[in-house]
Amino acid sequence: MTNSPVATGVAGAPVVVQAASAGEVLSGYLHAQATEFLRSLRLHAESGSDAEDAGEAARLLRRSARRIGGTLQVFRPLTDVTWTDPLRGELGWLTDVLGREHAYAARLARLRGALHRLSGADAEAAGALTVGAARAGALLDRRLTLARTRAHTAALQALGSSRFHAVADAVAVLASEVPLDPAARDLLAGEALPCLAEQAQRRLTDAVELLPLAVAGRPYNAEALTLGLAAAPAADSPPPESRQDAPWHHARRLVRLRRYAQEVLDEQHQQAEAEPSLSVRLLGAGQALDRHRDAAEAAAAAGAAARTPRIAPATAYALGVLHADQRHEVESARYAFGRIWLRVTTGVGP
Amino acid sequence: MTNSPVATGVAGAPVVVQAASAGEVLSGYLHAQATEFLRSLRLHAESGSDAEDAGEAARLLRRSARRIGGTLQVFRPLTDVTWTDPLRGELGWLTDVLGREHAYAARLARLRGALHRLSGADAEAAGALTVGAARAGALLDRRLTLARTRAHTAALQALGSSRFHAVADAVAVLASEVPLDPAARDLLAGEALPCLAEQAQRRLTDAVELLPLAVAGRPYNAEALTLGLAAAPAADSPPPESRQDAPWHHARRLVRLRRYAQEVLDEQHQQAEAEPSLSVRLLGAGQALDRHRDAAEAAAAAGAAARTPRIAPATAYALGVLHADQRHEVESARYAFGRIWLRVTTGVGP
Repeated sequence: MTNSPVATGVAGAPVVVQAASAGEVLSGYLHAQATEFLRSLRLHAESGSDAEDAGEAARLLRRSARRIGGTLQVFRPLTDVTWTDPLRGELGWLTDVLGREHAYAARLARLRGALHRLSGADAEAAGALTVGAARAGALLDRRLTLARTRAHTAALQALGSSRFHAVADAVAVLASEVPLDPAARDLLAGEALPCLAEQAQRRLTDAVELLPLAVAGRPYNAEALTLGLAAAPAADSPPPESRQDAPWHHARRLVRLRRYAQEVLDEQHQQAEAEPSLSVRLLGAGQALDRHRDAAEAAAAAGAAARTPRIAPATAYALGVLHADQRHEVESARYAFGRIWLRVTTGVGP
Repeated sequence: MTNSPVATGVAGAPVVVQAASAGEVLSGYLHAQATEFLRSLRLHAESGSDAEDAGEAARLLRRSARRIGGTLQVFRPLTDVTWTDPLRGELGWLTDVLGREHAYAARLARLRGALHRLSGADAEAAGALTVGAARAGALLDRRLTLARTRAHTAALQALGSSRFHAVADAVAVLASEVPLDPAARDLLAGEALPCLAEQAQRRLTDAVELLPLAVAGRPYNAEALTLGLAAAPAADSPPPESRQDAPWHHARRLVRLRRYAQEVLDEQHQQAEAEPSLSVRLLGAGQALDRHRDAAEAAAAAGAAARTPRIAPATAYALGVLHADQRHEVESARYAFGRIWLRVTTGVGP
């Protein structure tokens, strides 16, 4: 496998041998991602006390971990699943634990941005921020900074754990030799890979068909805030809105898998016959659903902060405004996704 | 003037004499509206203790008062302004004082509806209304019912006042003989009336051109809530959002004037050559701007209720959600108006 038929062309660029096997192309992609993973890990170790460098290294680490995990999922039948399935689970754990610090920081930035927007331009500079908005900002700051610090500690602990070292060892294996199903060596890349990508596409299409796109396509349908004041079943249970968000989050994960599958196909074609417009649309669809997820979680954070005991009514009021504002962002993201999806399925438009 | 050239045709339907003067057509419309006014007044007096009948009579009274005032404004040059200008002012006072009770009732119904929607379907039946939503509802109920009761008393006092009797006497004059400018008798209806309606159209177009329709035309532009948490200059001053709402309210009044002007023109044409699509579009544009005004006032009411001393944080939170929800209704109404306006100006579409 290390003796790949991907030869080096005159300009040093790889040239695909036409009859490449599915296993070879998949290995090529996983090699590259595993190498990225190990490089990011080194960068992280070398970043020392530089928080920005460490953050960037962690981002790159998550990026390749997601791609490896996603690719192993989409092209599962081509791999030695007794070896890849457990790794996939561990990569999920890793991206989750590494992603939380960033997520809390991004959530706080989003809510701060919304507070400033809702206070009018230059309100803070002009001292026109209401007491409620200022206090809500301080409360969110405290809560999310605390959560972020905890997530940072958890991420560092994870990176120092033997569990993580086992993941890194497994990724090092991928960087040299991908454990494949024996059949993958005989299947033609041009046949097997598009077939599995097509299955990922079908799972995505099925999931999107379950979304209320007809409603979401009507602007200002007021659907996302429908449960904005509904009572949660229990004090610690997720907000009632999360029920209506779940199928969108599911679609978000499937868009991502489809996108990684496309990257493998593009690898095979070396961009020559690639469909840049499809990749661009999938990226756009994914970004809309990322915004959906981010806004939903920011709304939940505002709602949770409002349940802090003994806060002032003005603070609670500002958090209520913030919650509704972010739920409208959720609705806006659904609307945007619906429009992009039309272009993904019909292939029409920019 | 009572000897109108509008003769009665074979089927009893009026037939317009081609050479009707502007004064004659205007008088015909004002006669009809003044007669409606006096009839509604009788209905109101006869309604006794039946609140529903009284409410309906007051609505009809306002309806004709608005039409008389609006028509006197648009076709002012055709009237004896020393007599009609003061009446116009008095009709403005009357529609305002009579409209408030209805406005408070409608505002409460709108906010109650929003609270129920935000609590999810059947939340109240299922007892799933949050404490905050239930308390916010009760607080709004108290505040707006009190305001409504005061408005009811004020309306009854107004209807019993000598100031009102003077208005009714003036309307009775309109029902028999409209004080016109002498020139109006010589001007051809088919020339003078469309010219003045065109001026009303131009004032409307000028006002709409000042509206940020480019922003409003992008769904989810988040513009209407921009000042949702901005500090009011002083405790009793109007909410900061009212500054951005004012030009839309101005356009709303001008749409209404244009609509009444169209009714006078249609009267002239007896619907034969009337432009039903223009009337329908003006009605749609007016309804969008009515919704804009209603949602803006409901949002302000939620915000004002949140400044009640010693309310619970959960109540304030629900009022914040409600405020933001209604500001999104404001944004939604602007979006709807923008689309209808395109059809008003281009004449394209349904």
